[in-house]
Amino acid sequence: MNIILASTSTLFGGTYLTYLKKEIVSLFDGIEEIIFIPFARPGGISCDEYTDKAKAFFAELQIKVRGLHEFDDQTKAIQEAKGYFTGGGNTFLLVKTLHENGLMEVLKSNVENGKAYLGCSAGSNIGGLNMKTTNDMPIVYPPSFDCMGLVPFNINPHYLDPNPDLKHNGETRETRIMEFLTQNDIKVIGLREGSWIRRIGDRISTEGTEKTRIFEKNKTPYELEPGTIL
Amino acid sequence: MNIILASTSTLFGGTYLTYLKKEIVSLFDGIEEIIFIPFARPGGISCDEYTDKAKAFFAELQIKVRGLHEFDDQTKAIQEAKGYFTGGGNTFLLVKTLHENGLMEVLKSNVENGKAYLGCSAGSNIGGLNMKTTNDMPIVYPPSFDCMGLVPFNINPHYLDPNPDLKHNGETRETRIMEFLTQNDIKVIGLREGSWIRRIGDRISTEGTEKTRIFEKNKTPYELEPGTIL
Repeated sequence: MNIILASTSTLFGGTYLTYLKKEIVSLFDGIEEIIFIPFARPGGISCDEYTDKAKAFFAELQIKVRGLHEFDDQTKAIQEAKGYFTGGGNTFLLVKTLHENGLMEVLKSNVENGKAYLGCSAGSNIGGLNMKTTNDMPIVYPPSFDCMGLVPFNINPHYLDPNPDLKHNGETRETRIMEFLTQNDIKVIGLREGSWIRRIGDRISTEGTEKTRIFEKNKTPYELEPGTIL
Repeated sequence: MNIILASTSTLFGGTYLTYLKKEIVSLFDGIEEIIFIPFARPGGISCDEYTDKAKAFFAELQIKVRGLHEFDDQTKAIQEAKGYFTGGGNTFLLVKTLHENGLMEVLKSNVENGKAYLGCSAGSNIGGLNMKTTNDMPIVYPPSFDCMGLVPFNINPHYLDPNPDLKHNGETRETRIMEFLTQNDIKVIGLREGSWIRRIGDRISTEGTEKTRIFEKNKTPYELEPGTIL
């Protein structure tokens, strides 16, 4: 497999995908056209608008982008593509659309057979076993929370450390993930912004500028340095 | 109806339910025993532990508390009770348990017939039309997101204003609720900590120390002073 699952598309104060550019060039090496999966629709923007944003970035790399929503036969479009990019937004909307259109399994089998996959945020959540560690609001009801399982764990993107200055009684991210572990025995990778998971064949590693926080059932959470094999 | 739907059980630096004590005394006036619904299990604590916490507070008010999980026939327990308190925690776990045990509709009809109901956080979410504006992580998959609709809108508890100092690209709460409105035409009440909704008969009002932020489809969000009729 040939996969990047990134915490975010955009670092604070940065521009779209810039911090990942070198890694993206390597991921899509030799590929002239990819499919963009826009269904997470951040802020409710249209699939066309969102695809235009991806097109603008990939034009710099001489890679053509077509939005999956543009195709009458989306299953065929996935089968015939050489690479994929799923953008962030709302994971519930993304997963609902993929399941209802019968695309989750098709995408999974194509990526498992070696086609390049880039996911950011919600697009990384669907690379995990299920979407039960998304941070998103459940604005729509998907027929299932199951995802592709391109890696043998779950992802929590935009992982955020507790803020001791916050005078607010909402749960911390760590509390939420620990609640997940009371109901599920699945490893969770807390990806801070600036970090990503890279899978090349069977080699899965943590990458980027930040440490990665790992949560497992009945264990104290622990940190991994960038470059660690998972 | 006779209902309190509160943003939180505990103010920052405060103790459990203290800020709501006067309003709770009025809600449960003349009632000697209530049912506590512990299924949201914050932090994954047991139903017994959570019920003990509620018992300790209500003992001060000379109100006896029994956990719903203690009953063999939970439907009958709801039918026979005179008042209810649903505590906060994980809304997905709460809604899944209520639906799977066939209790959501039973609780709804009893409260609609005038029995006193107190909800905090997740317990307030289930008073809304559906749980699609919860902040919680989807750690389990409920058979439906539908809730009791004790009020004709949705609740977002622990409503948090955007923090301009946060160097993080996760969505703000307002962005999430605006995404909800792209997919649903349902009013959302953003309840800041310290605020609650009070329903007495057909009179529904915002209460507490904070303004309440209201979100409606195709409208700019706006603020209501405490004491405003909804």
